Amino acid sequence: MAHSDRLLMGPGPCNPYPEVIEAFGRPLLGHLDPEFIDLLDETNDRLRAVFLTANALTFPMSATGSAGMEATFCNVLAPGEVVVIGVNGVFGERMCDVADRLGAEVVRVDAEWGQAIEPQRMLDAHPGPKVIAIVHAETSTGVRNDLEEIGAGKGDALFLVDCVTSLAGIPLEIDAWGVDLAYSGTQKCIGVPPGLSPVTVSQRAIEGFVERSPSWYLDLSMIADYVAGGSTRAYHHTAPISMVYALHAGLGVILEEGLGNAQARHRACGEKLQLGLQEMGFELFAQEGHRLPELTSVRIPLDRLPEGMGEAGVRRLLLDRYGIEIGGGLGPVAGQVWRIGCMGHTARPRNVTLLLGALAEILL
Amino acid sequence: MAHSDRLLMGPGPCNPYPEVIEAFGRPLLGHLDPEFIDLLDETNDRLRAVFLTANALTFPMSATGSAGMEATFCNVLAPGEVVVIGVNGVFGERMCDVADRLGAEVVRVDAEWGQAIEPQRMLDAHPGPKVIAIVHAETSTGVRNDLEEIGAGKGDALFLVDCVTSLAGIPLEIDAWGVDLAYSGTQKCIGVPPGLSPVTVSQRAIEGFVERSPSWYLDLSMIADYVAGGSTRAYHHTAPISMVYALHAGLGVILEEGLGNAQARHRACGEKLQLGLQEMGFELFAQEGHRLPELTSVRIPLDRLPEGMGEAGVRRLLLDRYGIEIGGGLGPVAGQVWRIGCMGHTARPRNVTLLLGALAEILL
Repeated sequence: MAHSDRLLMGPGPCNPYPEVIEAFGRPLLGHLDPEFIDLLDETNDRLRAVFLTANALTFPMSATGSAGMEATFCNVLAPGEVVVIGVNGVFGERMCDVADRLGAEVVRVDAEWGQAIEPQRMLDAHPGPKVIAIVHAETSTGVRNDLEEIGAGKGDALFLVDCVTSLAGIPLEIDAWGVDLAYSGTQKCIGVPPGLSPVTVSQRAIEGFVERSPSWYLDLSMIADYVAGGSTRAYHHTAPISMVYALHAGLGVILEEGLGNAQARHRACGEKLQLGLQEMGFELFAQEGHRLPELTSVRIPLDRLPEGMGEAGVRRLLLDRYGIEIGGGLGPVAGQVWRIGCMGHTARPRNVTLLLGALAEILL
Repeated sequence: MAHSDRLLMGPGPCNPYPEVIEAFGRPLLGHLDPEFIDLLDETNDRLRAVFLTANALTFPMSATGSAGMEATFCNVLAPGEVVVIGVNGVFGERMCDVADRLGAEVVRVDAEWGQAIEPQRMLDAHPGPKVIAIVHAETSTGVRNDLEEIGAGKGDALFLVDCVTSLAGIPLEIDAWGVDLAYSGTQKCIGVPPGLSPVTVSQRAIEGFVERSPSWYLDLSMIADYVAGGSTRAYHHTAPISMVYALHAGLGVILEEGLGNAQARHRACGEKLQLGLQEMGFELFAQEGHRLPELTSVRIPLDRLPEGMGEAGVRRLLLDRYGIEIGGGLGPVAGQVWRIGCMGHTARPRNVTLLLGALAEILL
């Protein structure tokens, strides 16, 4: 089955770095092979360099970003414990669903979709939560929620952050900002196909682990014995070897470029795209000052769609005529916004130029 | 980082089929791209052909085999419900751990490691369990547990089977044998790197689903809307695209060869290996009549190890001098048995010849 060669400008996955695809071709090692253990250790070092953390428990979870979310929640929240969750999009909602299934008491801090959450509201929501959780970069709206003030004011709470769309794309400092648990995904600004969820956990969070996680697969105490077990690496489950190769390679590309340079590249593409869309007369959806460069949300110009063509038709035309994928809206903004990603290998100015040109050709 | 080119003759992963590695190189599609949905549908069709099932809910879970185990358990067992679990190795034990975390009442049917579990004991263990669960091919011992009699006698119970090391390696008929829930792994007889867990669920099991799975990520009701949702494919989580390419290709290899031929190839390699080991004077560990051809367990000839070299030293020498990986024992048989796999692309007679030759060169 042949596949089309897409330019992936949706909310993720992005196009992977060529070095990543190359890594998939390397001979497969066993998950207990000394060479694989070395590779995993180096991958974890690279993750620490990108997360800006010294956390010993930093590793790629063997599943996608949503499993990283569930793993971080289910290891620190016992039934009845309080978690404050910021909700201004799909992924904040998902956090509430995950926490609710654990029997935790969820205190929501809602903000309108497209708006950022005021950090002080997160701190004022409850006098003594076990966990305060928020999404750094809301993939459903293109909004950045600020973390530093929450981390500085968290008190005894554990600070849990969704970094799926922020890691390597915008500034993020796990240790300096007081983040205790964070998870990400490989298919966004790291430039690797989906399949793993980089996770990092502070010593403070480990001390706050529940006695036994309700999930065996996501039990971070057991996983720690394999990924950070020093000389004895106790088998937990079989690691997804090829995906670890890919992640190792993607992180290598970013660190060779320099984390700051990679973020600058994402920023430059986002600014060029957002300026270009505004020059075409479109209205950006995310709150000014909180717009993600790596993921732009824009109100769909419904009066400028080609005659008889809905917004889904335009996206389909982009796909069929130009091989470009962009994303539709989710939940309450379905049909109202498009989401355009410039992440990982996709974050190149020429891709922005191409997309703006294609939209100009299609729209009235 | 260069990797050695290993011959993977441990308990999994095996060496992947060349077509599988090739598939990793294909251009990445988005998880909602119509071309990817077609590919996923075809992958699920191929899984049905290998599982021998018509189950609509048949798909690759976005995590490794142990997550498939947890997904099948956590969608059908509510706290207090009874599950009968056969235990004659690590993976039966793991089932008990998973079920216990769910708050289920676990009724164990134990057999000695290396022995098979008598099916009638599974049926006699409890008068009305919600679920009867067993491992088809115990990866920790190389033993096959028979399924047909349990499926025929299950009554109102749901029959849940671990097919991680059996699928495509030995005869397995999900529908004909009355299996309601089954999960597997990609890194065994399917010949694909680890990372996904093929799962199949009967309509009867779907009707027995708990109201809400305690796990969001493993919630089969929600996942079904994406993988088997007909014309509307509701986004759940981002599928591991590249791994699905790989699985699609691996299944293609097996179906082109013919499922029966692939099983015959595994059988021929296993017989050749087991005969060869016995001719060298070694004692097979698994009960006669229940030996897996794809995974041979053999008592380590401790009196024939090179002077001053432990069994781990022999495995290390196999790795360093010949690039061959075999597996050690787990749990109570650690240090007592080796586990030698001939699965997927590794299941070729020449690999058996090579391993026997290497062992003859090393051992006294």
